[in-house]
This record gives sequence, structure tokens and C-alpha cells, in this order.
Amino acid sequence: MTVPGQYSVCVIGLGAMGMGAAKSCIRAGLTTYGVDLNPQALAALRQAGATQAATSADAFAAELDAVLLLVVNAAQVKQILFGERGLAPRLKPGIPLMVSSTLSADDAKQIEQQLKPLGLHMLDAPVSGGALKAEEGQLTVMASGAEAAFDRLQPVLDAIAGKVYRIGEDIGLGATVKIIHQLLAGVHIAAGAEAMALAARAGIPLDVMYDVVTHAAGNSWMFENRMRHVVDGDYAPKSAVDIFVKDLGLVADTAKALHFPLPLASTAFTMFTAASNAGYGKEDDSAVIKIFSGIDLPQKKEDL
Amino acid sequence: MTVPGQYSVCVIGLGAMGMGAAKSCIRAGLTTYGVDLNPQALAALRQAGATQAATSADAFAAELDAVLLLVVNAAQVKQILFGERGLAPRLKPGIPLMVSSTLSADDAKQIEQQLKPLGLHMLDAPVSGGALKAEEGQLTVMASGAEAAFDRLQPVLDAIAGKVYRIGEDIGLGATVKIIHQLLAGVHIAAGAEAMALAARAGIPLDVMYDVVTHAAGNSWMFENRMRHVVDGDYAPKSAVDIFVKDLGLVADTAKALHFPLPLASTAFTMFTAASNAGYGKEDDSAVIKIFSGIDLPQKKEDL
Repeated sequence: MTVPGQYSVCVIGLGAMGMGAAKSCIRAGLTTYGVDLNPQALAALRQAGATQAATSADAFAAELDAVLLLVVNAAQVKQILFGERGLAPRLKPGIPLMVSSTLSADDAKQIEQQLKPLGLHMLDAPVSGGALKAEEGQLTVMASGAEAAFDRLQPVLDAIAGKVYRIGEDIGLGATVKIIHQLLAGVHIAAGAEAMALAARAGIPLDVMYDVVTHAAGNSWMFENRMRHVVDGDYAPKSAVDIFVKDLGLVADTAKALHFPLPLASTAFTMFTAASNAGYGKEDDSAVIKIFSGIDLPQKKEDL
Repeated sequence: MTVPGQYSVCVIGLGAMGMGAAKSCIRAGLTTYGVDLNPQALAALRQAGATQAATSADAFAAELDAVLLLVVNAAQVKQILFGERGLAPRLKPGIPLMVSSTLSADDAKQIEQQLKPLGLHMLDAPVSGGALKAEEGQLTVMASGAEAAFDRLQPVLDAIAGKVYRIGEDIGLGATVKIIHQLLAGVHIAAGAEAMALAARAGIPLDVMYDVVTHAAGNSWMFENRMRHVVDGDYAPKSAVDIFVKDLGLVADTAKALHFPLPLASTAFTMFTAASNAGYGKEDDSAVIKIFSGIDLPQKKEDL
């Protein structure tokens, strides 16, 4: 029964998702701290009402009732928690850590094994929804962990999530569900690109093709969202090609560990890797369409 | 300016789509004829108010103001129009034929070439939407053809379609848009099956996986519709595996004709072909998941 305001949470990683989650914590009345290396993000969070925002949690680690990690990958999570001047040993024993980066199940389990001797609870809790849902406190959380971890993170979950899936007790299940979700997201973007590339080759106007698909059974969330960028010729990164090189790499690691064949995901992984290798890694993930040659794609209006 | 009731249309092919389209024509007040080889379908259409329904159009060919073809493939279209006792030479010159089967662009063009000397107009007009939308007169039509063909088919389009896309004038464009749509539909079903198979292998409850994906950015129309069948263990065919062996075969033909690579569609084609070869061709297309071994899939409730 924590009274908001008496519950302190630190959000580590103030990118698009972390910033939105941290602001949602502030809005929910939690005492909110933020950590990032980017001074602009720290200033923005202070202005939004954070109690403190700094490049390390050293100054307030002992005050925290919960930690939410939204950094890019497992290496960053491990460095922050267990690296030189790592955070984990400075936290009050018994507090929960919500690890929401996209990780392999193996990495999630390794992190849990290192938190356990310190008496810290882990929730394996990847999120989905994008920057807008994060800002609105309406993220989808797919979580596994002990009852105690869920209970102690309830004020944070209430603040940031529109929907919380309890996958099970074992650490690694949350990570796996997220990875399988990313398999679909990645294949759908690559399939959208392949279909639009074929349409361009066959002389179908891409705006017409987009309109037909988005009103018919061939539609996907990713087709509707990302192929709009292709129709507009706008590859300014909302989410970059290299994110899917990473995430479909995690899908491949998962399949390898289980000796399980993934014909489509491995093909999509090759397509995103080819796009990155061709120099499009930092562009919007819809730029995977640029691996197809011999086609004319729409140009951005101001470029014409 | 045709007065409904004075406009006669014949729907050829009274499967799920054709039956719904024919009933929509009756409801719109058109004088409606039906042709199919299945006596039950003919009886059903007569009961719904068709003027005549028969195994051939011989008796009323000369009365028709329009023909709608909704048979399975190009071979059937050609046989009906130009085979022994073919329909095309018996039709009034100047009437339009709406060819709504899923065809290759080449087949669509060949059919047009054979209709032209007879003075008949062709609309290359594949449809999407399934049996329910057909029944409601709310099909999506993706059509190409001359202005005259569109104009003369207006009463039929008004009766059966919720949305009509005019792709262009050239016969073959409508067929190509439909084929590209089927590329996406097929890849999305196969990707859904691959993701659910991996979830089963990783110990994720499939109903939870389904729930997460359908509330997140990894969703597709096909995932939501077809993976429900996997969760329920119900492979009674709504649309069969062999339909996608056919349609992804048309995708492959299209790509081959254009010398265009389709990494994902060719992989999905192999997956559906493997499912058909393993004996699942007549099952629901979601049965493509059965190509993955070493997993336990949900069983249908009454089978338990």
C-alpha cells in the first residue's frame, strides 16, 4: 500500500520509450529520478518535474523503491548494474528491478542470477507500443517473474502500462514473447517492402497499392505504419534498420538455442542485414526496400 | 441509365464468393442468373430469387447485359468462355465481362485478346473480402480496364462492391494488384505459423502469445484471423492450404516474368507446398504450422 509520492522510481535510459515512461511516472505522482548520458534528455526530464536527473544514479541509489531499465541492449543493462561502479550493489535489498530492454532469454536469466545474491527482485518485462504510447502511459508490458516482483512494481506498472501480460514465473519467458513479437514485426516490414518493390516493378502506383492493401486482408500493423513512409519517400528514422538487425539477431539466437528452424525470420534477417551493409542502417526500417534494385521509388516532396 | 430489373447479369461460379455476389445482385434488383456444376448451389440460388440457375448459360446467354466470372482459376475461365460450347460467342456483342478470379496478368491479357474480336468488353477485376463481405455486397474490387467496361458494369459494381479501386486502363494491372495482395496475405499466414510454432517450442502458452500479438504492433489481419484457428486447434478449411499453393504460385510466375527476386514470398511458397506435400492441402491454410515438428499444438476441444 504505497502512497504515491512516497514511492521513488528511477528510469534508466531516457530514449523515446524511457522518456515517455519517466514522464508517465511523474504524472502518476511517483518521486521520479532519471539517468541517461545525454544532457538534453536530462534537462527535458528535469523540466517535466523529475526530482533529479543525472548521468549516474550514485546520488540517489539508496533512496529508490524501484528501478526501470529501458536502455538499448543486454550489454548496457549488465554494464549499468554490474560494471565498474555498478548500481546493483548500491540499491536497498528487496527492491524490484523492471528490465524492459529487448534481451535474449539467456541474458535475462544471467541478469537474474547476478541480482539474486544481492536480494534484488527482477521482472523480465519487455514493452511494446512506441514513443506515443510511452508518453501516454499506455505501454503494453509482457512480463514474467515472481509474484513479489509484480506486487512491488505495481505503482510503476500502473503509471506506464495500458496492459500488462503475466506470462509466467520464470525469467526468460517475457523476453521470449517479446522476441517472437519482433519476429512478426520484422517479417511484416520486410514483406511490406517486398510487395511494394514488386508493385513498383510492375508499374502499379504505390499510393494505390497502399490504399488497396490497407483496406483488405493483406494488411498488417507494420504495413500500414511503415509503407506510408515508402509512399511518402520519407526515410527519416522513426525506428532504424539497425534495430531490426539487432532484434532479428536475437530471434536467430533464440532459434539457434532451441535448434528450431525459422525460414521466414532468417530470410528477413538477411534482408535487413543487406540493407545495413548497403549503408541504410541508420535510416528508417522501411528503407529495407532499398535492397531491391531496378525500381523507381517515390521521392520526398521537398526533394522533387 | 439502366433501370434495375431491366439489367440482366449472370454470375458464373457459385462458391462462397460467387454465391454472395449473386445474392447481392438479386437484392439490388438486377435480373440475376447463376451457373455452377453443383446442384445444391443452383437450388440455393433459385430459392434466393434467381431468375434461372443452371449448369450452363446456354438457355439465357443471349439475354445477358453482363457476366461476372468467379470461378477458381484461369483454366476454368478459358474453358467456360472459349471451350467446346463456350459462352463468349453466344453473348450479345458489346456486353461487358467482369473477370474476378485470381489470375496471372498474362492470363488476363490472353483472355482479353480472345474477347476483343467478339466485340466483348473485359474488366480485369479481382475481388477481396471473403464470403461474409460477398454476402453483404461489400467486396473490395481492384479493377483495370477501359472506361466503357467500368460504365457498363456499374449496376453490378454497385450491387456487390463496398469499394472499387480503378488501377488503370491496361488489362493485367488488376490481376497484378491482387497477386501482390496475395503475396502479403500468404507471407503473413506463414509468418504467423512460424511465430506460433516457435512460441510452442519455447513453452509460451499460445493463447497468451495470440493475445499479446493481437494487441501490439506485430499484428496482421491474417495473424488475427488465422492463428485463432491454431489456438482453437480447428483446421476445418475456411480457405485451404492449396489455395495459397496456387496463389503464391501465381506470385512466383509474376516475379519470374519480371525477373524480380522475392525472398520472403518464395520461402512462404515453399512452406505451403511442404504443407500440401505432407497431406494438409485440403485443411485450413493455418495448417501450414504443421510443417514444424517437435512441438505440441492445441487440440480441438471436442477431440480432447
